[in-house]
Amino acid sequence: MGKLLETINLHIPIIQAGMAGGITTPKLVAEVANAGALGTIGAGYMSASSLRNEIQAVKQLTDKPFAVNLFAANLESFSSDVAPMQHFLEKYRNELEIDPGKQSVKVYDYLQEKVYVVIEQDIPVVSTAFGVLSSVLIERLKKNDVKLIGMATNLDEANELVEAGYDIIVAQGFEAGGHRGTFDVNKYPNGCNVGLLSLVQEFLYNLDVPVVAAGGISNNGQIDALLRMGAAGVQLGTKFLVAKEAGTNSAYRRALMKASSVDTVITSAFSGRPARAVFNRFIQEVETSDCEILPFPIQNELTKDIRGAAKEFAVSEFQSLWAGQGVGSIVNEDPVVDILASLIGKDTEETDQLGLELDD
Amino acid sequence: MGKLLETINLHIPIIQAGMAGGITTPKLVAEVANAGALGTIGAGYMSASSLRNEIQAVKQLTDKPFAVNLFAANLESFSSDVAPMQHFLEKYRNELEIDPGKQSVKVYDYLQEKVYVVIEQDIPVVSTAFGVLSSVLIERLKKNDVKLIGMATNLDEANELVEAGYDIIVAQGFEAGGHRGTFDVNKYPNGCNVGLLSLVQEFLYNLDVPVVAAGGISNNGQIDALLRMGAAGVQLGTKFLVAKEAGTNSAYRRALMKASSVDTVITSAFSGRPARAVFNRFIQEVETSDCEILPFPIQNELTKDIRGAAKEFAVSEFQSLWAGQGVGSIVNEDPVVDILASLIGKDTEETDQLGLELDD
Repeated sequence: MGKLLETINLHIPIIQAGMAGGITTPKLVAEVANAGALGTIGAGYMSASSLRNEIQAVKQLTDKPFAVNLFAANLESFSSDVAPMQHFLEKYRNELEIDPGKQSVKVYDYLQEKVYVVIEQDIPVVSTAFGVLSSVLIERLKKNDVKLIGMATNLDEANELVEAGYDIIVAQGFEAGGHRGTFDVNKYPNGCNVGLLSLVQEFLYNLDVPVVAAGGISNNGQIDALLRMGAAGVQLGTKFLVAKEAGTNSAYRRALMKASSVDTVITSAFSGRPARAVFNRFIQEVETSDCEILPFPIQNELTKDIRGAAKEFAVSEFQSLWAGQGVGSIVNEDPVVDILASLIGKDTEETDQLGLELDD
Repeated sequence: MGKLLETINLHIPIIQAGMAGGITTPKLVAEVANAGALGTIGAGYMSASSLRNEIQAVKQLTDKPFAVNLFAANLESFSSDVAPMQHFLEKYRNELEIDPGKQSVKVYDYLQEKVYVVIEQDIPVVSTAFGVLSSVLIERLKKNDVKLIGMATNLDEANELVEAGYDIIVAQGFEAGGHRGTFDVNKYPNGCNVGLLSLVQEFLYNLDVPVVAAGGISNNGQIDALLRMGAAGVQLGTKFLVAKEAGTNSAYRRALMKASSVDTVITSAFSGRPARAVFNRFIQEVETSDCEILPFPIQNELTKDIRGAAKEFAVSEFQSLWAGQGVGSIVNEDPVVDILASLIGKDTEETDQLGLELDD
C-alpha cells in the first residue's frame, strides 16, 4: 500500500480517474493534488496544444504532482461509410435543432505529440487505457522519470503492461463507469468483465507491481477493505463527477444523483467502444435499431455533435452519462476536499484539520 | 459480523452455497457443519422424499446445524411446444448415443412438501433463491423457529425479502457461479448484475439485517476485507465444487481447475435462466443458433438427459459447468477441512488444531 504513495509521492492512496471530455477541469485536478491524492487530466481526446494549456492551468493552482491520462491506441481513422448511422442519428439532430451530420469522418491522433508535451512540462505520471504504449514512447517517458500507470481488465493485459515496463497496474472491475479498458474489443465486444474483488485478488496474486483497484468504489469502507486485501490504492471516477470543481454539466449531475446501481449498462452506442453509462433513450434506441454501431473512434465522432448539443441544452437523454455501479451512493455535490475527507474516513467537520495535516 | 454466527449458531461465518444437482453430498454438508461453518443441502430440484433421505444421511454424519436451499419459485410447468429446441438438441444426443428427447415436458413442483419435510426434520435454516417464499410458507417456517436466508441481486429484491420476514440477506454479486438469483428475468434477461463490492456496500447501507457476501470469493484476503466492510459472513459455491467430498464429476472438476476468471460467461442455454458457467461448446452453439431458448424450468428439463449423459461419459463440453469468477484460484482438490482452514487464514498444517478448536 505504501508502494503507491512512495512511487508517486502522494499522501492519500487515491487516484482521480482521467475522465475525458471536459470533466477534469484544472480546478478539479489541482484540488485533488492539493489534498495529497493523484489528480489526473483526462487528455484522451485532447490535442497537444490543449493539453499544454490544461497542464499550465493546473500548475497555476498547485505545486503538487499530478497525472495525464492518454489512450494507448491510435485514434487516427477515416470513414466515408457512415451514411446509415448518420441517417439514424438525424432524428436526434432534428430534436435538438442542430445541423445535419457530416457524410465522412476523420479523426486525428496526437498521442506522440502529447507524450512530448508531458515530457516538456515535466509531468511525473502518465496513465493509459485501451492498450500498451509503443516501446519507443515508453522508453522516452521512462528516460524522463515519468511513472507509468496502465489499466487492465484481465490478467493477460496486466502482464502485457508489466512486461512493457509499466510501474503500476489499475485493475478495472466490471463495476467501473465509462469505457472498459479492454485492449481487444473484437475478442470481448462487451468488454472483458471481471468483478473488482475477483480481479484485484487475481492481480495481487500474480503481479509484482502495485495494484490499484477501480470500479464502483464510493466510500471509505470499500477503500479500507481493498487496501487491507493488499491493493496499493484505489481509483475513482464517478465520485468526482459530482465534485463542485468538475466540468460535469448540470443535466449529467442530476442524472447521477438520481441513478442507482441497477440503472447503469455497458453500451457501445456512444463511442463504438463498450462503456458503462446510466441507461437512457439514446442507448435504448441505438441498441435496438437495425443500424450497425461503427467502431471506435468513428462512432464517437459521429455522435459528438449530438452529445455536445445535449450538454448545452441540458438534455440528459442524448448524453453519454458515464457512471459506475457505485452511483447509487451519490446524492450530493461536494467540494473535492470534502469528498476526499469522507473517502479516507474523516468527517467533513474535520476537513480543515485534514487539509492542514495533508499540506504538511 | 457476530450477527450471522449468533443467528445460526456457527463458529465460522462461511456458508457453503446450496448447489443443486447432486453436488452437495451428505458428506460435504456434514463436513462443512462439523468444521463450524454452514453446510447446505441443494434441494432446489429434489422431491420431498429425496430431501428427507438427504437430511437423514447428513444427520448420520453431524449433530451440528445445517441448511436446506430451495427455489422460491413455482417450478410446476408443462410444454408441448418444444419441437424446435428438441430438434436442435438431437445432435448432442446422437453424439452421446442416448435416446431421442421427449416431445412434451412436464415439471413438478414439490416446494410445499419440502417445506413440510424441513419442519418435520427440525432443520434450523432455509435459504432460497429466485424470489420470496409465500407468506403462508414463511409463517409456517417462522413458527417452527426456522431462520430464513434470502438471496438478492439488487436492493429492491433485498427489501422484498426483508419485508416478508427473511432474517439474513445474501448479496449475490455479478461474479457468482451458477444461477443468477434475480427474481424477474423478464425485466433482467441476463440477470441483474451488480459487482459484489458495490452490492454489499448498498445492502449494508440500506438494510438492518445481516448481509452475507457471495460471488467470486476464493480466499482469506477477500473474506477478511468483506467482513471488515461489515458483511456478516460470506457464501462460497465454486470453492466447494472441488472439495473431495463434493459430488462434482471428474470432467467438471478438471474444467474448473483449468479455467480462469475470463472463461466464465452468463448464459441461459442450459436451464432457461441466466447462470454463470465455464464457456463450452454447448453454450456457444445454443446461443448462436436460431432456436429460441425456452423459459426455466422447461429448457432445464429438455437439456437434463444430455447433461446427465455428459457427466456419466466425462464430457465437459455438454455439461453446465457452473463456476464463479474466482475459479482461476482453484487448482487443487482438497478436503473440506483444508478448504475452510485456508479460507479463515490458517495453514493446512494447523488444520488438526483448527478442528479441535472448532469442535470445542
